[in-house]
Amino acid sequence: MRDPDFRYYLITDRKQCHPRPLTEVVKQACREGIKAVQLREKDLGGRALFALAGELREITRRWEARLFINDRTDVALAVGADGVHCRETGVSPARIKNLQSSLVVGSSVHSIEASRRAEKEGADFLLFGPVFYTASKAKYGAPQGIEALQEVVEAAAVPVFAVGGITPERAPQCRSAGAYGVAGISSVMPADSVEQQVNRWRSILHTL
Amino acid sequence: MRDPDFRYYLITDRKQCHPRPLTEVVKQACREGIKAVQLREKDLGGRALFALAGELREITRRWEARLFINDRTDVALAVGADGVHCRETGVSPARIKNLQSSLVVGSSVHSIEASRRAEKEGADFLLFGPVFYTASKAKYGAPQGIEALQEVVEAAAVPVFAVGGITPERAPQCRSAGAYGVAGISSVMPADSVEQQVNRWRSILHTL
Repeated sequence: MRDPDFRYYLITDRKQCHPRPLTEVVKQACREGIKAVQLREKDLGGRALFALAGELREITRRWEARLFINDRTDVALAVGADGVHCRETGVSPARIKNLQSSLVVGSSVHSIEASRRAEKEGADFLLFGPVFYTASKAKYGAPQGIEALQEVVEAAAVPVFAVGGITPERAPQCRSAGAYGVAGISSVMPADSVEQQVNRWRSILHTL
Repeated sequence: MRDPDFRYYLITDRKQCHPRPLTEVVKQACREGIKAVQLREKDLGGRALFALAGELREITRRWEARLFINDRTDVALAVGADGVHCRETGVSPARIKNLQSSLVVGSSVHSIEASRRAEKEGADFLLFGPVFYTASKAKYGAPQGIEALQEVVEAAAVPVFAVGGITPERAPQCRSAGAYGVAGISSVMPADSVEQQVNRWRSILHTL
Protein backbone atom coordinates (compact mmCIF):
# COMPACT_ATOMS: atom_id res chain seq x y z
CA MET A 1 0.00 0.00 0.00
CA ARG A 2 0.97 3.63 -0.13
CA ASP A 3 2.45 5.13 2.98
CA PRO A 4 -0.10 6.03 5.63
CA ASP A 5 -1.63 9.46 5.20
CA PHE A 6 -1.19 10.25 8.88
CA ARG A 7 1.75 10.96 11.14
CA TYR A 8 -0.05 10.88 14.48
CA TYR A 9 -1.89 7.69 15.35
CA LEU A 10 -4.31 8.18 18.23
CA ILE A 11 -4.96 5.10 20.37
CA THR A 12 -8.03 5.08 22.58
CA ASP A 13 -8.39 4.36 26.27
CA ARG A 14 -11.77 5.36 27.58
CA LYS A 15 -10.50 5.01 31.16
CA GLN A 16 -7.95 7.75 30.58
CA CYS A 17 -10.54 10.22 29.37
CA HIS A 18 -13.13 9.33 31.99
CA PRO A 19 -15.52 10.92 32.95
CA ARG A 20 -15.71 12.41 29.45
CA PRO A 21 -17.13 9.90 26.99
CA LEU A 22 -14.56 8.49 24.58
CA THR A 23 -16.73 9.46 21.64
CA GLU A 24 -16.55 13.11 22.72
CA VAL A 25 -12.75 13.08 22.98
CA VAL A 26 -12.35 11.35 19.62
CA LYS A 27 -14.76 13.81 18.04
CA GLN A 28 -12.76 16.77 19.36
CA ALA A 29 -9.50 15.22 18.22
CA CYS A 30 -10.79 14.51 14.71
CA ARG A 31 -12.34 17.95 14.42
CA GLU A 32 -8.93 19.42 15.20
CA GLY A 33 -7.35 17.35 12.47
CA ILE A 34 -6.32 13.93 13.86
CA LYS A 35 -6.22 11.61 10.86
CA ALA A 36 -6.04 8.13 12.38
CA VAL A 37 -7.67 6.49 15.38
CA GLN A 38 -7.21 3.01 16.79
CA LEU A 39 -10.05 1.64 18.91
CA ARG A 40 -8.37 -0.33 21.66
CA GLU A 41 -10.61 -1.20 24.58
CA LYS A 42 -9.55 -4.70 25.41
CA ASP A 43 -11.82 -5.19 28.40
CA LEU A 44 -15.04 -4.47 26.51
CA GLY A 45 -17.36 -7.34 25.68
CA GLY A 46 -18.22 -7.91 22.04
CA ARG A 47 -21.58 -6.16 22.14
CA ALA A 48 -20.25 -2.96 23.69
CA LEU A 49 -17.18 -3.00 21.43
CA PHE A 50 -19.25 -3.32 18.26
CA ALA A 51 -21.49 -0.47 19.41
CA LEU A 52 -18.56 1.82 20.24
CA ALA A 53 -16.82 0.97 16.98
CA GLY A 54 -19.94 1.96 15.08
CA GLU A 55 -20.01 5.35 16.83
CA LEU A 56 -16.32 5.96 16.12
CA ARG A 57 -16.85 5.00 12.50
CA GLU A 58 -19.45 7.73 12.15
CA ILE A 59 -17.18 10.31 13.76
CA THR A 60 -14.07 9.34 11.82
CA ARG A 61 -15.98 9.22 8.56
CA ARG A 62 -17.43 12.67 9.20
CA TRP A 63 -13.93 14.10 9.76
CA GLU A 64 -12.18 11.92 7.17
CA ALA A 65 -9.96 10.11 9.62
CA ARG A 66 -8.86 6.49 9.32
CA LEU A 67 -10.32 4.03 11.81
CA PHE A 68 -8.42 0.95 12.95
CA ILE A 69 -9.74 -1.71 15.30
CA ASN A 70 -7.37 -3.46 17.68
CA ASP A 71 -7.28 -7.21 17.10
CA ARG A 72 -10.92 -7.72 16.11
CA THR A 73 -11.26 -8.10 12.38
CA ASP A 74 -14.90 -9.02 12.82
CA VAL A 75 -15.61 -5.64 14.39
CA ALA A 76 -13.60 -3.92 11.66
CA LEU A 77 -15.59 -5.68 8.94
CA ALA A 78 -18.92 -5.05 10.63
CA VAL A 79 -18.45 -1.29 10.90
CA GLY A 80 -16.47 -0.77 7.71
CA ALA A 81 -13.26 0.30 9.43
CA ASP A 82 -10.18 1.08 7.34
CA GLY A 83 -7.96 -1.40 9.06
CA VAL A 84 -6.98 -3.65 11.93
CA HIS A 85 -4.20 -3.28 14.44
CA CYS A 86 -2.40 -6.47 15.46
CA ARG A 87 -0.74 -7.15 18.75
CA GLU A 88 2.60 -8.92 18.55
CA THR A 89 0.88 -12.10 19.79
CA GLY A 90 -2.18 -11.40 17.69
CA VAL A 91 -3.45 -12.64 14.38
CA SER A 92 -1.04 -12.40 11.50
CA PRO A 93 -1.62 -9.61 8.98
CA ALA A 94 -1.87 -12.21 6.23
CA ARG A 95 -4.88 -13.82 7.93
CA ILE A 96 -6.60 -10.48 8.15
CA LYS A 97 -5.98 -9.65 4.52
CA ASN A 98 -7.31 -13.06 3.56
CA LEU A 99 -10.60 -12.01 5.11
CA GLN A 100 -10.64 -8.69 3.30
CA SER A 101 -7.72 -7.58 1.19
CA SER A 102 -8.54 -3.89 1.38
CA LEU A 103 -7.95 -3.75 5.15
CA VAL A 104 -4.84 -1.82 6.12
CA VAL A 105 -2.93 -3.64 8.85
CA GLY A 106 -0.68 -2.12 11.48
CA SER A 107 1.32 -4.30 13.84
CA SER A 108 2.76 -3.60 17.26
CA VAL A 109 6.27 -4.99 17.62
CA HIS A 110 8.64 -4.99 20.53
CA SER A 111 11.80 -6.31 18.90
CA ILE A 112 13.60 -6.28 15.59
CA GLU A 113 12.78 -9.97 15.11
CA ALA A 114 9.09 -9.30 15.60
CA SER A 115 9.24 -6.39 13.20
CA ARG A 116 10.79 -8.61 10.52
CA ARG A 117 8.10 -11.21 11.04
CA ALA A 118 5.25 -8.69 10.93
CA GLU A 119 6.58 -7.17 7.75
CA LYS A 120 7.01 -10.56 6.13
CA GLU A 121 3.44 -11.39 7.09
CA GLY A 122 2.19 -8.32 5.30
CA ALA A 123 1.94 -5.54 7.90
CA ASP A 124 1.53 -2.17 6.21
CA PHE A 125 3.14 -0.28 9.05
CA LEU A 126 4.69 -1.01 12.43
CA LEU A 127 4.42 0.45 15.90
CA PHE A 128 7.66 0.00 17.76
CA GLY A 129 8.06 0.56 21.46
CA PRO A 130 8.00 1.33 24.22
CA VAL A 131 10.61 3.88 23.22
CA PHE A 132 10.34 5.75 26.52
CA TYR A 133 8.92 4.86 29.89
CA THR A 134 5.13 4.91 30.11
CA ALA A 135 2.89 3.37 32.74
CA SER A 136 0.52 1.68 30.27
CA LYS A 137 3.38 -0.08 28.46
CA ALA A 138 5.54 -0.95 31.47
CA LYS A 139 4.36 -4.54 31.26
CA TYR A 140 5.97 -4.85 27.81
CA GLY A 141 9.36 -4.37 29.37
CA ALA A 142 11.89 -1.61 29.87
CA PRO A 143 12.00 1.35 27.53
CA GLN A 144 13.90 0.36 24.39
CA GLY A 145 15.28 3.78 23.59
CA ILE A 146 15.96 5.79 20.48
CA GLU A 147 18.79 3.59 19.19
CA ALA A 148 16.59 0.50 19.10
CA LEU A 149 13.95 2.53 17.29
CA GLN A 150 16.53 3.57 14.73
CA GLU A 151 17.62 -0.04 14.19
CA VAL A 152 14.05 -1.14 13.52
CA VAL A 153 13.47 1.76 11.16
CA GLU A 154 16.61 0.90 9.23
CA ALA A 155 15.69 -2.77 8.97
CA ALA A 156 12.09 -2.16 7.95
CA ALA A 157 10.80 -1.47 4.46
CA VAL A 158 7.48 -0.21 5.83
CA PRO A 159 6.83 2.92 7.89
CA VAL A 160 7.52 2.70 11.61
CA PHE A 161 5.65 4.67 14.25
CA ALA A 162 7.24 5.27 17.65
CA VAL A 163 5.09 4.49 20.67
CA GLY A 164 5.51 4.52 24.42
CA GLY A 165 5.97 7.70 26.40
CA ILE A 166 6.06 9.87 23.28
CA THR A 167 5.47 13.50 24.27
CA PRO A 168 5.62 16.52 21.96
CA GLU A 169 9.04 17.28 23.48
CA ARG A 170 10.37 13.82 22.65
CA ALA A 171 8.79 13.44 19.23
CA PRO A 172 11.54 15.26 17.28
CA GLN A 173 14.11 12.69 18.50
CA CYS A 174 11.90 9.93 17.13
CA ARG A 175 11.55 11.65 13.79
CA SER A 176 15.31 12.18 13.65
CA ALA A 177 15.74 8.46 14.26
CA GLY A 178 13.65 7.83 11.15
CA ALA A 179 10.22 7.21 12.64
CA TYR A 180 7.51 7.89 10.08
CA GLY A 181 5.24 9.12 12.82
CA VAL A 182 4.25 8.67 16.43
CA ALA A 183 1.43 6.93 18.22
CA GLY A 184 0.04 7.38 21.66
CA ILE A 185 -2.71 7.18 24.17
CA SER A 186 -1.77 9.31 27.11
CA SER A 187 -0.74 12.49 25.34
CA VAL A 188 -4.28 13.15 24.15
CA MET A 189 -6.82 11.01 26.03
CA PRO A 190 -6.48 12.67 29.43
CA ALA A 191 -5.64 16.18 28.16
CA ASP A 192 -7.51 19.06 29.80
CA SER A 193 -7.90 20.55 26.35
CA VAL A 194 -7.89 17.99 23.57
CA GLU A 195 -7.93 20.83 21.04
CA GLN A 196 -4.79 22.43 22.43
CA GLN A 197 -2.98 19.14 22.65
CA VAL A 198 -3.84 18.15 19.09
CA ASN A 199 -2.63 21.53 17.90
CA ARG A 200 0.63 21.04 19.79
CA TRP A 201 1.07 17.79 17.93
CA ARG A 202 0.39 19.46 14.63
CA SER A 203 3.01 22.14 15.23
CA ILE A 204 5.63 19.61 16.39
CA LEU A 205 5.03 17.18 13.52
CA HIS A 206 4.26 19.92 10.96
CA THR A 207 1.23 17.82 10.01
CA LEU A 208 -1.07 15.28 11.61
CA MET B 1 -32.59 -22.72 10.35
CA ARG B 2 -33.37 -26.37 10.93
CA ASP B 3 -32.91 -27.71 14.43
CA PRO B 4 -29.30 -28.51 15.30
CA ASP B 5 -28.20 -31.97 14.27
CA PHE B 6 -26.55 -32.57 17.63
CA ARG B 7 -27.75 -33.12 21.18
CA TYR B 8 -24.43 -32.89 22.98
CA TYR B 9 -22.48 -29.67 22.55
CA LEU B 10 -18.88 -30.04 23.66
CA ILE B 11 -17.22 -26.86 24.94
CA THR B 12 -13.44 -26.76 25.10
CA ASP B 13 -11.14 -25.84 27.97
CA ARG B 14 -7.57 -26.79 27.27
CA LYS B 15 -6.70 -26.24 30.95
CA GLN B 16 -9.10 -28.98 31.97
CA CYS B 17 -7.54 -31.54 29.68
CA HIS B 18 -3.96 -30.54 30.43
CA PRO B 19 -1.40 -32.09 30.00
CA ARG B 20 -3.09 -33.78 27.05
CA PRO B 21 -3.33 -31.42 24.08
CA LEU B 22 -6.82 -30.11 23.40
CA THR B 23 -6.58 -31.27 19.79
CA GLU B 24 -6.05 -34.84 20.99
CA VAL B 25 -9.10 -34.76 23.26
CA VAL B 26 -11.31 -33.22 20.59
CA LYS B 27 -10.11 -35.78 18.08
CA GLN B 28 -10.98 -38.64 20.43
CA ALA B 29 -14.38 -37.11 21.18
CA CYS B 30 -15.21 -36.62 17.50
CA ARG B 31 -14.00 -40.07 16.59
CA GLU B 32 -16.39 -41.48 19.17
CA GLY B 33 -19.26 -39.52 17.66
CA ILE B 34 -19.44 -36.03 19.19
CA LYS B 35 -21.21 -33.87 16.61
CA ALA B 36 -20.60 -30.31 17.81
CA VAL B 37 -17.64 -28.54 19.36
CA GLN B 38 -17.33 -24.98 20.60
CA LEU B 39 -13.82 -23.53 20.77
CA ARG B 40 -13.77 -21.38 23.88
CA GLU B 41 -10.30 -20.40 25.07
CA LYS B 42 -10.83 -16.84 26.15
CA ASP B 43 -7.31 -16.22 27.37
CA LEU B 44 -5.61 -17.10 24.08
CA GLY B 45 -4.20 -14.30 21.96
CA GLY B 46 -5.44 -13.92 18.41
CA ARG B 47 -2.54 -15.72 16.76
CA ALA B 48 -2.78 -18.81 18.95
CA LEU B 49 -6.56 -18.85 18.74
CA PHE B 50 -6.56 -18.73 14.93
CA ALA B 51 -4.01 -21.53 14.82
CA LEU B 52 -5.97 -23.74 17.24
CA ALA B 53 -9.22 -23.05 15.41
CA GLY B 54 -7.60 -24.19 12.18
CA GLU B 55 -6.54 -27.45 13.77
CA LEU B 56 -10.00 -28.07 15.23
CA ARG B 57 -11.54 -27.29 11.86
CA GLU B 58 -9.51 -30.08 10.28
CA ILE B 59 -10.47 -32.53 13.00
CA THR B 60 -14.17 -31.64 13.03
CA ARG B 61 -14.34 -31.72 9.24
CA ARG B 62 -12.70 -35.13 9.18
CA TRP B 63 -15.29 -36.49 11.62
CA GLU B 64 -18.21 -34.46 10.29
CA ALA B 65 -18.78 -32.49 13.47
CA ARG B 66 -19.95 -28.87 13.63
CA LEU B 67 -17.42 -26.31 14.80
CA PHE B 68 -18.45 -23.15 16.63
CA ILE B 69 -16.12 -20.37 17.74
CA ASN B 70 -16.83 -18.48 20.93
CA ASP B 71 -17.31 -14.77 20.30
CA ARG B 72 -14.79 -14.35 17.45
CA THR B 73 -16.57 -14.16 14.12
CA ASP B 74 -13.28 -13.26 12.45
CA VAL B 75 -11.78 -16.56 13.57
CA ALA B 76 -14.91 -18.41 12.47
CA LEU B 77 -14.76 -16.82 9.02
CA ALA B 78 -11.03 -17.40 8.65
CA VAL B 79 -11.21 -21.14 9.33
CA GLY B 80 -14.60 -21.79 7.77
CA ALA B 81 -16.33 -22.74 11.02
CA ASP B 82 -20.03 -23.60 10.99
CA GLY B 83 -20.99 -21.00 13.51
CA VAL B 84 -20.30 -18.59 16.32
CA HIS B 85 -21.24 -18.79 19.96
CA CYS B 86 -22.27 -15.52 21.64
CA ARG B 87 -21.86 -14.64 25.25
CA GLU B 88 -24.79 -12.84 26.83
CA THR B 89 -22.74 -9.62 26.76
CA GLY B 90 -21.33 -10.48 23.35
CA VAL B 91 -22.09 -9.42 19.84
CA SER B 92 -25.68 -9.79 18.75
CA PRO B 93 -26.52 -12.73 16.48
CA ALA B 94 -27.85 -10.26 13.91
CA ARG B 95 -24.43 -8.59 13.61
CA ILE B 96 -22.81 -11.95 13.02
CA LYS B 97 -25.30 -12.96 10.37
CA ASN B 98 -24.76 -9.63 8.65
CA LEU B 99 -21.13 -10.63 8.21
CA GLN B 100 -22.04 -14.06 6.85
CA SER B 101 -25.61 -15.20 6.73
CA SER B 102 -24.77 -18.90 6.64
CA LEU B 103 -23.18 -18.86 10.11
CA VAL B 104 -25.23 -20.69 12.73
CA VAL B 105 -25.38 -18.71 15.95
CA GLY B 106 -25.80 -20.06 19.46
CA SER B 107 -26.23 -17.73 22.43
CA SER B 108 -25.54 -18.23 26.10
CA VAL B 109 -28.31 -16.80 28.25
CA HIS B 110 -28.70 -16.62 31.98
CA SER B 111 -32.27 -15.33 32.29
CA ILE B 112 -35.60 -15.52 30.50
CA GLU B 113 -35.23 -11.86 29.46
CA ALA B 114 -31.86 -12.55 27.88
CA SER B 115 -33.25 -15.59 26.11
CA ARG B 116 -36.05 -13.50 24.60
CA ARG B 117 -33.57 -10.89 23.42
CA ALA B 118 -31.20 -13.45 21.92
CA GLU B 119 -34.01 -15.12 20.06
CA LYS B 120 -35.33 -11.81 18.76
CA GLU B 121 -31.83 -10.99 17.55
CA GLY B 122 -31.70 -14.16 15.55
CA ALA B 123 -30.01 -16.80 17.73
CA ASP B 124 -30.52 -20.26 16.26
CA PHE B 125 -30.27 -21.98 19.61
CA LEU B 126 -29.76 -21.06 23.25
CA LEU B 127 -27.60 -22.34 26.06
CA PHE B 128 -29.31 -21.76 29.38
CA GLY B 129 -27.62 -22.11 32.71
CA PRO B 130 -26.03 -22.71 35.04
CA VAL B 131 -28.74 -25.29 35.76
CA PHE B 132 -26.68 -26.99 38.47
CA TYR B 133 -23.66 -25.94 40.46
CA THR B 134 -20.37 -26.00 38.58
CA ALA B 135 -17.09 -24.35 39.49
CA SER B 136 -16.50 -22.82 36.06
CA LYS B 137 -19.90 -21.13 36.00
CA ALA B 138 -20.08 -20.06 39.65
CA LYS B 139 -19.29 -16.50 38.65
CA TYR B 140 -22.51 -16.35 36.62
CA GLY B 141 -24.51 -16.74 39.81
CA ALA B 142 -26.29 -19.43 41.74
CA PRO B 143 -27.59 -22.51 39.97
CA GLN B 144 -30.91 -21.68 38.35
CA GLY B 145 -32.44 -25.12 38.61
CA ILE B 146 -34.68 -27.28 36.48
CA GLU B 147 -37.78 -25.12 36.83
CA ALA B 148 -36.06 -22.07 35.38
CA LEU B 149 -34.79 -24.23 32.53
CA GLN B 150 -38.33 -25.37 31.85
CA GLU B 151 -39.61 -21.78 31.81
CA VAL B 152 -37.00 -20.75 29.25
CA VAL B 153 -37.74 -23.80 27.11
CA GLU B 154 -41.46 -23.00 27.17
CA ALA B 155 -40.89 -19.36 26.25
CA ALA B 156 -38.41 -20.08 23.47
CA ALA B 157 -39.21 -20.95 19.89
CA VAL B 158 -35.65 -22.17 19.28
CA PRO B 159 -33.94 -25.21 20.81
CA VAL B 160 -32.50 -24.77 24.30
CA PHE B 161 -29.46 -26.63 25.58
CA ALA B 162 -28.92 -27.02 29.32
CA VAL B 163 -25.48 -26.10 30.63
CA GLY B 164 -23.79 -25.93 34.01
CA GLY B 165 -23.02 -28.98 36.08
CA ILE B 166 -24.76 -31.33 33.63
CA THR B 167 -23.66 -34.90 34.31
CA PRO B 168 -24.97 -38.02 32.62
CA GLU B 169 -27.01 -38.67 35.80
CA ARG B 170 -28.66 -35.24 35.63
CA ALA B 171 -29.19 -35.07 31.89
CA PRO B 172 -32.51 -36.96 31.86
CA GLN B 173 -34.06 -34.31 34.15
CA CYS B 174 -33.01 -31.65 31.66
CA ARG B 175 -34.49 -33.56 28.76
CA SER B 176 -37.72 -34.05 30.72
CA ALA B 177 -37.83 -30.29 31.27
CA GLY B 178 -37.78 -29.86 27.51
CA ALA B 179 -34.12 -29.18 26.84
CA TYR B 180 -33.22 -30.04 23.26
CA GLY B 181 -29.79 -31.15 24.38
CA VAL B 182 -27.02 -30.51 26.85
CA ALA B 183 -23.71 -28.72 26.73
CA GLY B 184 -20.66 -28.99 28.85
CA ILE B 185 -16.98 -28.70 29.46
CA SER B 186 -16.13 -30.65 32.52
CA SER B 187 -17.91 -33.89 31.78
CA VAL B 188 -15.57 -34.67 28.89
CA MET B 189 -12.45 -32.47 28.94
CA PRO B 190 -10.86 -33.95 32.07
CA ALA B 191 -12.18 -37.52 31.64
CA ASP B 192 -9.66 -40.31 32.14
CA SER B 193 -11.17 -41.99 29.13
CA VAL B 194 -12.74 -39.58 26.67
CA GLU B 195 -14.04 -42.54 24.66
CA GLN B 196 -15.88 -44.04 27.62
CA GLN B 197 -17.34 -40.70 28.64
CA VAL B 198 -18.58 -39.93 25.13
CA ASN B 199 -20.18 -43.36 24.98
CA ARG B 200 -21.88 -42.72 28.31
CA TRP B 201 -23.33 -39.57 26.82
CA ARG B 202 -24.52 -41.45 23.78
CA SER B 203 -26.33 -44.03 25.84
CA ILE B 204 -27.95 -41.42 28.09
CA LEU B 205 -29.07 -39.15 25.25
CA HIS B 206 -29.75 -42.04 22.82
CA THR B 207 -27.78 -40.02 20.27
CA LEU B 208 -24.99 -37.42 20.23
